[in-house]
This record gives sequence, structure tokens and C-alpha cells, in this order.
Amino acid sequence: MKEKLTLMIPGPTPVPEKVLQALAKHPIGHRTPEFQEIVRQTTEMLKWLHQTKGDVLSITGSGTAAMEAGIINTLSHGDKVICGENGKFGERWVKVAKAYGLKVEVIKATWGKPLNPEEFKHILENDKDIRAVIITHSETSTGVINDLQKISNYVKTHPKAIMIADCVTSLGACNVPMDDWGIDVIASGSQKGYMMPPGLSFVAMSQKAWDANMESNLPKFYLDLSSYKKAGDKNSNPFTPGVNLYFALLEGLKMMQEEGLENIFNRHKRHKKATQEAIKAMGLSLFADENNSSPSITAISTKEIDAEIIRKSIKDDFDILLAGGQDHLKGKIFRIGHLGFVNDRDILTAISAIEATLNKLGKLKAPIGKGVAVASEILLKSL
Amino acid sequence: MKEKLTLMIPGPTPVPEKVLQALAKHPIGHRTPEFQEIVRQTTEMLKWLHQTKGDVLSITGSGTAAMEAGIINTLSHGDKVICGENGKFGERWVKVAKAYGLKVEVIKATWGKPLNPEEFKHILENDKDIRAVIITHSETSTGVINDLQKISNYVKTHPKAIMIADCVTSLGACNVPMDDWGIDVIASGSQKGYMMPPGLSFVAMSQKAWDANMESNLPKFYLDLSSYKKAGDKNSNPFTPGVNLYFALLEGLKMMQEEGLENIFNRHKRHKKATQEAIKAMGLSLFADENNSSPSITAISTKEIDAEIIRKSIKDDFDILLAGGQDHLKGKIFRIGHLGFVNDRDILTAISAIEATLNKLGKLKAPIGKGVAVASEILLKSL
Repeated sequence: MKEKLTLMIPGPTPVPEKVLQALAKHPIGHRTPEFQEIVRQTTEMLKWLHQTKGDVLSITGSGTAAMEAGIINTLSHGDKVICGENGKFGERWVKVAKAYGLKVEVIKATWGKPLNPEEFKHILENDKDIRAVIITHSETSTGVINDLQKISNYVKTHPKAIMIADCVTSLGACNVPMDDWGIDVIASGSQKGYMMPPGLSFVAMSQKAWDANMESNLPKFYLDLSSYKKAGDKNSNPFTPGVNLYFALLEGLKMMQEEGLENIFNRHKRHKKATQEAIKAMGLSLFADENNSSPSITAISTKEIDAEIIRKSIKDDFDILLAGGQDHLKGKIFRIGHLGFVNDRDILTAISAIEATLNKLGKLKAPIGKGVAVASEILLKSL
Repeated sequence: MKEKLTLMIPGPTPVPEKVLQALAKHPIGHRTPEFQEIVRQTTEMLKWLHQTKGDVLSITGSGTAAMEAGIINTLSHGDKVICGENGKFGERWVKVAKAYGLKVEVIKATWGKPLNPEEFKHILENDKDIRAVIITHSETSTGVINDLQKISNYVKTHPKAIMIADCVTSLGACNVPMDDWGIDVIASGSQKGYMMPPGLSFVAMSQKAWDANMESNLPKFYLDLSSYKKAGDKNSNPFTPGVNLYFALLEGLKMMQEEGLENIFNRHKRHKKATQEAIKAMGLSLFADENNSSPSITAISTKEIDAEIIRKSIKDDFDILLAGGQDHLKGKIFRIGHLGFVNDRDILTAISAIEATLNKLGKLKAPIGKGVAVASEILLKSL
């Protein structure tokens, strides 16, 4: 049915009416006290979300812009960095680092498997010239979560290196206590856990990251975080920001504060669990290592069935948009996004639709209704 | 009165309800055929607006991001460029060029005066190594319009140089026929003539600009236009774009096409004329050279009166937001934005409010009502 699509992709994610309505307000001047007040409030709430006393800066741009900003504001041409690569976003940060002339040591894991923290430890112990470790916390392309806490712990013992993390699909979904874990740079994007449309992105910076910034010589202007810091200290922006997106951000963050961090994390955990168990009950396989699975995205191996056929069928019949596999995984997996403004009903709906679709395609390997039964039991029990 | 503010600053500019409503739609996936269709339609209309057969690429970011992209995608470290500087934005492009290690020759004019095209001609004739000329067409900070057509003509005769223009407050306000004038790069921003909120920006690229891009070696990733071109050829984006901003862009551009380019340009011309004549009739002075005044912004010298007092008074009493002077012009000028979704009523309203406020402050040097009389005569006569 037209105009009744439900998004269950890992971004854009569903947006509450309140947030959409905020978006539709007449814009105001970005150099006014009224807008400064919005910047002040959202900045305070962003710090709460990141669990940091450091700076959280907002950029009008995508998550990639934020991650690039984190990299190019703390490093210099020729600097040695370690990049973790076990999915499409890991690959992207390697490309960014190389585009700016960094010397990149890549630690790989097969797509679907987590990065091995011990490999990071080994290089960090043996190379005192490493300036940064760059990893993706929740790998959106595969549904794997990497052990950011452990890797960050190893980075902390290194004399020079800082920890730069893409937390685009983990922040606002699971615990990422920036200061506690000693993460120096966290990048994220508005269309994920923030429950708002794409267009804003965020870079959190520790004091160690700012110290590194003092030495950084990579060229930049729009993504020069020192400009954002200077303006941000006056609750302002160096360039015209997405004013209406800020209206939405304010509402989204208020809703997050009302729910509370623990409740948000628990909700994502329950949704992941219900989704995973239902998928297995239907006779399908989880693509990502179950002990290292993202709170936000469940990737499903479809084996002999073309995943794109399942995805298309679910969109056509039930108006639910799921994500496909990227690159070599196209047709081999599909991905359910359960990130941001997602409730128990959405999970039940997605599982029902997947079950009905597999049945229609003659590919269901379990009695119809089993997936829903398993999901509903988990969802209701843990209430 | 709260919630009833009228924006008459040079950006953000007023936004039609239809555009705001589009912004408030539920986001859709940016990798879907439905979104590709929006990219296709908006790209076609952007080409119409730029009067070009070349590419027009959309970036989620501010006008500065677009202008920086234009510069760093066509030039290399150490390249010689000429920058025109007669206001805050001219200054900014000098900073961008220097941040990337370009050798910058600056041609200045006093703020409020236009750049002298003959100075560009002189340097271009004597230095065959110049790779680009960078100017601001409509200088938002002063309300001056520079002679882009003439400067571009001089650039065309040069063997190597390309013409890069900031048309942020001229595009969609006056004629900027990209192909006819031989402009190679045009940057613009959504919160100006496009009648939508800030958050998207646009870079138009000629074939000569793409040829220069092949040689360009400056580091970039988020602002790498070759990625936007590659994705754009499939009606897609390299990164998650501001999906809801695209909904708004589509509506704004449709409204512009319904009005037609000539009508849009005439409307801005009439509004400029009515504003200028009314200001003079009130005994105030225009800050910018009248023969070189922007179609979008009228800057007013307040001489012995503090411009900030006038501006604050108009905001408090009449809920109209005017812009102040920037840097050394703070308190010395105020600026009326008449750009984008502005009708005759808005002009009459602004003039009435300025007149009433000057009268209240005891600073009106003409009989009250004279400004409104002059403005209304011009507005009604030319209908």
C-alpha cells in the first residue's frame, strides 16, 4: 500500500511524529539567541548520550563526514594508524585514511566475524609509533559488534595512540561509555539511534583527541573541528547548520532522555534476542557470530534462497523495507534493522512477515507460526 | 509575538508550507527506486536552474561545503589561484584556498564596493600559470554583486584557468546562465533561493572542471565529487543524504519551475528596487554601490545610529528578523534579505516596520509614510 512503508533497515530508521512535526517548523535564524538555546540544550543531551564530559560537536553531513572529521583532525600526513576491517564500513575508514596519506596497517576479520583484539594488542606493543586505532563498533554491513572496550583498553596503554571509533549504529543502542572506556573520538549519525532523519552527524572528542588535534596538519576547512569547537563554546556553529534538523534532534534527544539509557539499551537487547531466536526457529541462519552480534542489525544468511527475492516479496506484500547484503553478500543475506524508534510490535510484525513470505515461497523449514511464537514469548516474558 | 517571526535575513529564508510539509514526511530508504526517482527529478530541475547541460551534484552540508568541494576537486597543492575578496565570503574562500596549500593572489575591493574585473584581466594576461579564479557573485555580507559575467569572460581566454563562483545568494535570484557565461564551478545552498531550510548544498561542474578534476591531488573523501558523480549517474548518493531535505528540495524546485526563471528574476529585481528607493526616501543610505547591488540583500548604512538598536527594536516590536553587519560593520549596517520565498507584502511590511521604528527612535529624517509610499508605488506600478 502506497505511503504506508515501514523502515526496518539500519538507517534511515523510523521517526516519531513529534520529531517529524518539529522538522516542519518554520526555520529561525542560526545566529539568534533562540537557536543558541537549542544548540546549548542538544549539546548537553549529546554529552549525556555519549556519557562524556568532553565535547560533542554537530556537523551538517552524514556519519562518514563525522568519521572523516575525527580522523583528519587528530592525525598528520604519514602517521601510522591501525584500521580494523571486517565489513563495508571498516573498509571505508581504510580508504579515508589512505586518501589523506596515512600509513595504514589493516587488521582484518572475515565479514561476519569480529575483529580479534589480541591482534591490536600485538601491534600496539611492538610499534610505539602508532598514532591511532580506528575501528567500527557495530559493523552495519554484517551485524557484527567488535569489542571496542577491549581494544580501547589496549590503546590506553600505548604512549601515543588514540582510539577512534565509528559508533554510528551502536550509540543509542547499547552501552558506549566514552569516558569510562577511554575512547578518544566517537562518530555517529542522526538517522540511527537518534530517531530522526539523516543530515546531522556528531563527533565526540576527548582531551587526548584535542591534544592530538594541536599537532594535526591535514588540510580541512568544512570539517575543521577546531572551528566547531570555537563556535560551539558560544553555542553556535561555524557554518549555516541544518536548522530544522536541530529542531528534530532536540525532540529526539528529549524522548531518549525520557526513556533513559538503561531502558533504551534493554529494549535493543530484547529486540535482538527475539529476532535472533525467531530467525533460528524458522530454520534460517544468523550471519554474524552470535556472541558478537550488533544490538541494531540482525543479518540473516539465506543460503540457497536469493535474499533479494525474500526482501522484494516482503516489501511488495507487507510494505516492510529490509536491507540487503552489500558487495559480495548481495543476494546471500538480508538485514533487519532494529535500531532507534522500534517497539515490540515492529519486531513481531517483521518476524510474521518473514515467516509468511518464506512460507509463500515454499522455503519455510519449520511449522508456520513458530517464529512468531518464539519472538512473542521473549518479548512478553521480559516485559 | 512568539512563534510568529518573519525571516528577512539572507538565510535561512522563509519556507512555503508545502515545502515544510514535505520535510515532515516519514523518511524512505536512500537506496530504493523511490528515492532514486527523487534524485533524478531534482537533478533535472537543478540543471534547469543553473542553465547548464553539465552536472549538478547535491551534498548534505552547508554552502561552504559545496564551495570547498568545488575548490579542492579541481586544484592541486601549490596551484596558483586568484581570489576576489570584498566581503566576508570572499575572505572565506581565501582561507579555504590557503588551508589546502594553494598559492593565492588576492584581489581586494573595499567592503561595499564591487571587485574590479580589469584587475583580474591584468593578472590573467600576465600569468599563464593561474589555475583558477575564485569569486563570490553576490556578497551576502555587504549586498554587493560582482561582475561574474565579465570576470568569467576574461577567464575563458586564459589557457589554464577555470572560473569558480560562489553563487549562494545569486542563484535563483538573478540570471546566472552557467553554460552561456562559461562558469566552471558554481556553489549554492538550499536555504537561499531554493525556498527550503539549510542542510543541502549544490556544486555544478562544467566539463572543463571535470578535466581539472582528473589532475587534482588534494586529499578529500566526504567532499570527493568524483564519488558524487559516480553515484549521481545512477541517481544515487555516495553517502546517506539528508533524505527529508530532498523531499523539500523537490517541492521547492517544482514551485520555482511553476513561477519560471524570468518571473523569479523580475520579482527579485522589483523587490530590490522598492527596498532601495524606500530606504533612500526615509533618509537612510544604501551601503553597497547602487549599480552593483545584489538582488537578494540590501545593506543599509545607519551612520550615527547603532544598527543593532534598530534591528533589535524591529524584532521586539514587529517580529521581523533582519541581519546585522558582520565583523567591522557590526552596528554600522543592517541588512534586509529579500531572497527566495518573498512577496510584495513582505517588502511593504519590512519598510513599514523600519519606518515606524526609526520614527519611534526619533531618527526618521522624512515624513512618516514616505518610505511605504515609495515602495508601494514601485511594487504596484510594475505589476
